[in-house]
Amino acid sequence: MNKDFADRIKNVEALFHPKSIAVLGANNVKGTVPSDIFENLIKTGFRGVLYPVSPGEKRIGSVKAYKYVLDIEDPVDMAVVVFPSSVMHLALEQCGQKGIKSAIVISAGFREVGGKGIEREKQMLEIAEKYGISFIGPNCLGVINTDPDVMLNASFARQMPEEGEIAFLSQSGALCTAVLDYARAKHIGFSKFVSTGNKAQIGEAELLHYLKDDPKTKVVLLYLEEIRDGEGLMEAARAVIAAGKPVLAIKSGRSEEGAQAASSHTGSLAGSDDICDAAMRQAGIIRCRNIEEMFNRAIAFTYQPLPRGRRVAIVTNAGGPGVLTTDAAVDLGLEIARFEPETTKILKKKLPATANIKNPIDVIGDARADRYDWAVSAVLEDPNVDGVFVILTPQSMTEIESIAQQICEVAEKHDKPIYTSFMGEADVAAGIDILQKHHIPHYILPESMCDAFSATHRFAAEAGKMYEPFAPLEDVDREAAHRILDKAAADGQTWLTEDQATEVLKAYGLPVIETVVAGSPDEAVRAAEQAGFPVVIKIVSDDIIHKSDVGGVALDLESPEAVAEACEAMLGRVKEVQPDAKIKGFLVRRMIPQGEEVILGVKRDPTFGPVVMFGFGGIFVELLKDVSFGVTPVDPATVDRMVTGLKASPLFSGLRGRAPRDMASVTDSIRRLAQLAADCPQVKELDINPLIVLEDGKGSFAADARIIL
Amino acid sequence: MNKDFADRIKNVEALFHPKSIAVLGANNVKGTVPSDIFENLIKTGFRGVLYPVSPGEKRIGSVKAYKYVLDIEDPVDMAVVVFPSSVMHLALEQCGQKGIKSAIVISAGFREVGGKGIEREKQMLEIAEKYGISFIGPNCLGVINTDPDVMLNASFARQMPEEGEIAFLSQSGALCTAVLDYARAKHIGFSKFVSTGNKAQIGEAELLHYLKDDPKTKVVLLYLEEIRDGEGLMEAARAVIAAGKPVLAIKSGRSEEGAQAASSHTGSLAGSDDICDAAMRQAGIIRCRNIEEMFNRAIAFTYQPLPRGRRVAIVTNAGGPGVLTTDAAVDLGLEIARFEPETTKILKKKLPATANIKNPIDVIGDARADRYDWAVSAVLEDPNVDGVFVILTPQSMTEIESIAQQICEVAEKHDKPIYTSFMGEADVAAGIDILQKHHIPHYILPESMCDAFSATHRFAAEAGKMYEPFAPLEDVDREAAHRILDKAAADGQTWLTEDQATEVLKAYGLPVIETVVAGSPDEAVRAAEQAGFPVVIKIVSDDIIHKSDVGGVALDLESPEAVAEACEAMLGRVKEVQPDAKIKGFLVRRMIPQGEEVILGVKRDPTFGPVVMFGFGGIFVELLKDVSFGVTPVDPATVDRMVTGLKASPLFSGLRGRAPRDMASVTDSIRRLAQLAADCPQVKELDINPLIVLEDGKGSFAADARIIL
Repeated sequence: MNKDFADRIKNVEALFHPKSIAVLGANNVKGTVPSDIFENLIKTGFRGVLYPVSPGEKRIGSVKAYKYVLDIEDPVDMAVVVFPSSVMHLALEQCGQKGIKSAIVISAGFREVGGKGIEREKQMLEIAEKYGISFIGPNCLGVINTDPDVMLNASFARQMPEEGEIAFLSQSGALCTAVLDYARAKHIGFSKFVSTGNKAQIGEAELLHYLKDDPKTKVVLLYLEEIRDGEGLMEAARAVIAAGKPVLAIKSGRSEEGAQAASSHTGSLAGSDDICDAAMRQAGIIRCRNIEEMFNRAIAFTYQPLPRGRRVAIVTNAGGPGVLTTDAAVDLGLEIARFEPETTKILKKKLPATANIKNPIDVIGDARADRYDWAVSAVLEDPNVDGVFVILTPQSMTEIESIAQQICEVAEKHDKPIYTSFMGEADVAAGIDILQKHHIPHYILPESMCDAFSATHRFAAEAGKMYEPFAPLEDVDREAAHRILDKAAADGQTWLTEDQATEVLKAYGLPVIETVVAGSPDEAVRAAEQAGFPVVIKIVSDDIIHKSDVGGVALDLESPEAVAEACEAMLGRVKEVQPDAKIKGFLVRRMIPQGEEVILGVKRDPTFGPVVMFGFGGIFVELLKDVSFGVTPVDPATVDRMVTGLKASPLFSGLRGRAPRDMASVTDSIRRLAQLAADCPQVKELDINPLIVLEDGKGSFAADARIIL
Repeated sequence: MNKDFADRIKNVEALFHPKSIAVLGANNVKGTVPSDIFENLIKTGFRGVLYPVSPGEKRIGSVKAYKYVLDIEDPVDMAVVVFPSSVMHLALEQCGQKGIKSAIVISAGFREVGGKGIEREKQMLEIAEKYGISFIGPNCLGVINTDPDVMLNASFARQMPEEGEIAFLSQSGALCTAVLDYARAKHIGFSKFVSTGNKAQIGEAELLHYLKDDPKTKVVLLYLEEIRDGEGLMEAARAVIAAGKPVLAIKSGRSEEGAQAASSHTGSLAGSDDICDAAMRQAGIIRCRNIEEMFNRAIAFTYQPLPRGRRVAIVTNAGGPGVLTTDAAVDLGLEIARFEPETTKILKKKLPATANIKNPIDVIGDARADRYDWAVSAVLEDPNVDGVFVILTPQSMTEIESIAQQICEVAEKHDKPIYTSFMGEADVAAGIDILQKHHIPHYILPESMCDAFSATHRFAAEAGKMYEPFAPLEDVDREAAHRILDKAAADGQTWLTEDQATEVLKAYGLPVIETVVAGSPDEAVRAAEQAGFPVVIKIVSDDIIHKSDVGGVALDLESPEAVAEACEAMLGRVKEVQPDAKIKGFLVRRMIPQGEEVILGVKRDPTFGPVVMFGFGGIFVELLKDVSFGVTPVDPATVDRMVTGLKASPLFSGLRGRAPRDMASVTDSIRRLAQLAADCPQVKELDINPLIVLEDGKGSFAADARIIL
């Protein structure tokens, strides 16, 4: 953690737990932001002292107002600032003088309006630095802490959310209002709710750092429009996840960048949204497409135990929805549990003869709460079941509310997850309300239910796997690579020659095919032995233009004898057909063996820094954009996923009698490339295309490489 | 239309528009199905006469009851039967005697319980046939017609839906109850609502036939668990669509069949759910994954004009949701409209300086109804805009209801579609209610909104393209194919030899490579000229085991001279090395040229009958399951889609400098194969693997074929 970061997070605590707050710019004009903010603070019942600061008012509501923050006789923990942007520097300056170290800047009119606003934001940052102030905003909706000991609603949101264990951080203030409304209706509570606004200073990384240790927070949700510091975000998210708290995130603006990824060129393939995807994955962040999906997953994480496997039981009072849910479950990679004979026996005994006691269990349209109880309890006891989906349709004899109540009771007695879907809307509303109040996850769509289960299962399966990047390799020659790169740059090159590129790759132990010029047939034999057989020999002479015309090329030489023979034969032929030619020697290199082609690359992402890329060659890259990314530093799990997670991966692991390929050599190359990318900032882009991958155990070879400076 | 079908549909009208109804099996025991049904009929205010029939009761409610249906003094149009299945045959028999031609059989206890139930269902069918009765059910929820002149609620649903233009047919009665509940809350009305139950007699095909001409129905929704008569369904759906009414369908049970499609074997690739997908697509049916998706699309079709293109404008009061919607729109293939300068001018003039007047338009958090009005009206006038998405988040100054009202007013003045998304839940509920009451489609998720737009746009673009199957080919020899197939079957073969298969394909004009045995070098030359150069020549002799050992094979002969020369040379060499060998002649066939490989197949689907299959060879089939299906008879659009719609298709149309392939010859082969499949029911499965496709204009060749009987 660098010093700046440490400085910034020092005062985050006081943003959420102030004992006293100065509200700078409060007023009495109903319906304006400054008035709404103060009213929210008062009405929510903040458990501390509020000091309104207003140059023109004697009181705000019934609370004595101060002309200047410096006039406040007591110490102040935190400032909420709603003064116009034009006087923000004065307000912040005075906060600094007053010794206030934490602030929430609500006011707009900064970076987001361009021009002068950019200047003002810069000025704010300078003042904050001068006084060591940590601040959220500007241009934000505010901050909420539902802790009953704090009751902080420093926002102009329409309402205070319920207390809960979800922390929500959003870059869009307007989205916050929609989320609060959505959550209230579903009894979803929050621990902390933060509108981060322009993120001039405090961003997600600082807040995640705080939430990691916040005992009130179990799950963290992020809505991001822009990631300022990719590495910081990943690091902070990892820390939160290591503390057992899942991090879910929406990153909007997929499509624009997606378009950049449309071309098949290695460099431009690395469209930044794919990289963002990869980075989130690497950090363990669960990326969501929209608010619904995020909350559907969040309630599963927050309300219910994590599943120990992916075998689900389905209990329904209607066949159709049972089938639809089965379809969705299978689509999302879940398994339909097979029950133990004991379970089947219980179900048979308890349920009517017309019931379907196989999974999905149909308790039949006239089922009351008792049948749901029997069925759900029985399958929860089954060791082959990792979770239960309970489905209800409002049929004429369905006692919706008592069934809901029963499910809540059963859920309390077991430590496996129960999710529900009461289909319909008006008739089932009261039942759904009971479920939501008791924190039983409820879903409108079977797809959402299955998706949430799948997300929690994946998290459970991956949690505990600590992120441990590869140790730096010892057998690389960083200096050699730098020498070549720096010299090329000094010479004004914008890309390396093939020789130079080969040398750089070689310095990092990448499997290049080296070329040696031997002065004599004897030397050629030694060079061939060094390179490994089979080899190619070419005659080297400035006087010979078309080498093959004079028999000056010999391919596929398998032994020292063959090399010696070929060299002598070449000399003989040249003497015959072009006796004046001056022979410099013999070019010797290992034959590029037959193999399957993959491509590797390096790219620099403006957000996440050096990135490595992997793809299977030819049509898979060109046609299917079947490529994967890893943000450096990479860890074994990431490289493994890069190589095994592509559509084409089965082709290389022995599909249908094909020879398995040496993928260990590929992962080694990716690891080396990642280190090269991190060590050598001079490399702007790098492609190895193709890397020829031989059969398992035989390695791989870079047949062509390109490095752009 | 066959006679049975004509018989069945004759009486469907009376199911929806009866003047009088006998309710057989009604009772007075509250909370039972027979009581609920009669109560629903009475309470809904059926505009006709009800005659309860009950052996044990004098009256049902306050209505005089009859002991037997035959006791009713007046003519009766329709019967609703709720007698137990054990006496159903008696009830139906008496209906027949009474001259009732239409019936809704609610009672369960038939095919769905197996055993005796199957017998009972059969018996019912026989009685119905005897008297010419058309009936819905058994084992169903009933039938609803919201027409104010009819007001028929012959169901035990909890509630009568609102009147509307959507017809809903469901095989699951329980799902009906959920749908009615869902729809009521959203003010979605229905024209007809039918629970089809076991579909012993009347199924979707008959009902679609009726709905095609029903002036009250604009859109038809189907929930299917089983398709009994695939061809009938497709034909009926096409007729409905030709009448301008979209047909949307859910077919559940995807996953089980999906599993069958897991293997890469041509035959088993044809998992029936993929075929179901293909069949629906061919019929123009819009397949949906779940109830939400179906209704999200249905309201777009029902409430709003069809879009003329896919360029959308987005109007929002919050940036974040605007970006999320843009992402979703681009993902779903929509275009973000570019405005005319005139539009931009208006927006600039009307909206505040801080507003974003580019698409997506941000009218800013403090927007009231006027700004929404200006922005939405301006973009609707823009010729580059095909539809508008209006997004609202409930910010502190947002007047939700007046904005909703304003949108409804604007929508009325324009003939382009307007869809909305008011984000949140409780606060926005009143606004959403206004929108739903005024039939402005409202969506919780941007994805759903974009999906609905995309579905309506596709329908609009494809509507009017009549389904016109290929005319039967004249240049096929059906008799020749039958002769070979029948003989092979008679000989006890379960598959054809290569020769036989080649002959069958040849009879249908498929591009086989024929083999001719020529008796002399002269004959060989003529045969080669017939086959087309280059050719292969092989010597034919029972005495020569290894032809190539004696130089008995000549490849790639380009001219008559080369052929003659090769034959003579063979004769010479054989005379030298094996003078006793008896020469029968020369095998002549065209060389199989180099080309790209595809596979073609025929399969019989239990639901949809003969199906043709197409896929690109090798990894595309093996790894990516990249195959397409066409149900016979195929039309040009289907075959075109089969060939151009696969992931690998760009490879064959000239991607990145590759030579374009002769896809016209492939579509011709698919057409011929489809006709073969339809003409020759003896063929159980057929594979051409591979078909070698040459460069454009050069045709293609079946290199290997397999026909299973």
